[in-house]
Amino acid sequence: MKKKNPGPDEKRSEKITSIGKAAARLFNEKGFVETSMNDISDAARLSKGGIYHYFSSKNDILYSILMNYLDLIMEGLEEKLRAREDSPEKIRFFIARHIELYRTNVSEAKTLLHEAHFLPARYFKTIAEKERKYYQILAGLLSEFFGGRVPKERLTTITFSLLGMCNWIYSWYDPKGPVPPEELSEIIYTIFSGGAKGYQELSKGAEAG
Amino acid sequence: MKKKNPGPDEKRSEKITSIGKAAARLFNEKGFVETSMNDISDAARLSKGGIYHYFSSKNDILYSILMNYLDLIMEGLEEKLRAREDSPEKIRFFIARHIELYRTNVSEAKTLLHEAHFLPARYFKTIAEKERKYYQILAGLLSEFFGGRVPKERLTTITFSLLGMCNWIYSWYDPKGPVPPEELSEIIYTIFSGGAKGYQELSKGAEAG
Repeated sequence: MKKKNPGPDEKRSEKITSIGKAAARLFNEKGFVETSMNDISDAARLSKGGIYHYFSSKNDILYSILMNYLDLIMEGLEEKLRAREDSPEKIRFFIARHIELYRTNVSEAKTLLHEAHFLPARYFKTIAEKERKYYQILAGLLSEFFGGRVPKERLTTITFSLLGMCNWIYSWYDPKGPVPPEELSEIIYTIFSGGAKGYQELSKGAEAG
Repeated sequence: MKKKNPGPDEKRSEKITSIGKAAARLFNEKGFVETSMNDISDAARLSKGGIYHYFSSKNDILYSILMNYLDLIMEGLEEKLRAREDSPEKIRFFIARHIELYRTNVSEAKTLLHEAHFLPARYFKTIAEKERKYYQILAGLLSEFFGGRVPKERLTTITFSLLGMCNWIYSWYDPKGPVPPEELSEIIYTIFSGGAKGYQELSKGAEAG
């Protein structure tokens, strides 16, 4: 998925972002398969030739949207987590950031969930690897939270349960609706951290018994 | 989506189920859009004419798969819930049943999540209404659990958080993997009920304060 005739970096990057934004919205409305390059050029207010100046194909656009979104998700994450005091605060921050990134990138987040599997296998693999890193960071936080005492398979289950609460919002949550993003984050954090503490005590009981 | 030439009821129903099973597996592997009626007739070991004897179109097959799965999900649910002692036990039962139905109907559950939106609008609406009933039953249980003291928007958020944990399993959980379904259910229940109790106390504190 090579880029053609690179122009000045900044303008180029702005164009790529704005074409990506327009395409992500269309992918949400019509689905990736049903969206044509014509639709994208109409929505981005560029000629089809203009689009092909930046992207070699519709797959290339999809890949660019997802890579940019995942780069944004990963950017500075570990550094910011290190600055938090303890594992509960890190988990709280992780959840709040996840929801804030969703709020500001609804179309990209939904595209990641619903359309990524349309990518050719080797591009999908790169995306899946980036997602895996994100997952692993969360699993690391939770392992710290549990003092390393939870067996690997259960830690996986608990990590995906928390990710489930965070990601399922794509299917129901409207950031402009009655529950503001900060409140949503706090509800998820309260449920998770309270429940995880209960789980921790249960595990200790099982160890002792 | 009318049925043609009804034969003896039982044989008919068996055929419909086995065509649906074969189609749901294909929809999971290749996606609804990429699956052809030829693929379905090969997988179901029937002639294309044989398939058209039971279904008028690929949409009709998709609709039938989803309606049958949702009927199964709703079947006897309220009655069985009434037989449970209190709201924590009802919630525990709801989670365990959700995961057990996933275990025995992986392809259908995934088809519901990933392909339902390909249905024509009026059929999609019927499916969405059935899903809504299921959601409402869970929201009712949680309202009972909180003694009716949680405001509607927050109850929605909490209900979808629990559904998120339960439904996100479609993206990662292998019922034949190291965590048996019963353990998965218990982990989700422990996290949710413990966390919900914490939330309850937090709300009481807010009321009192």
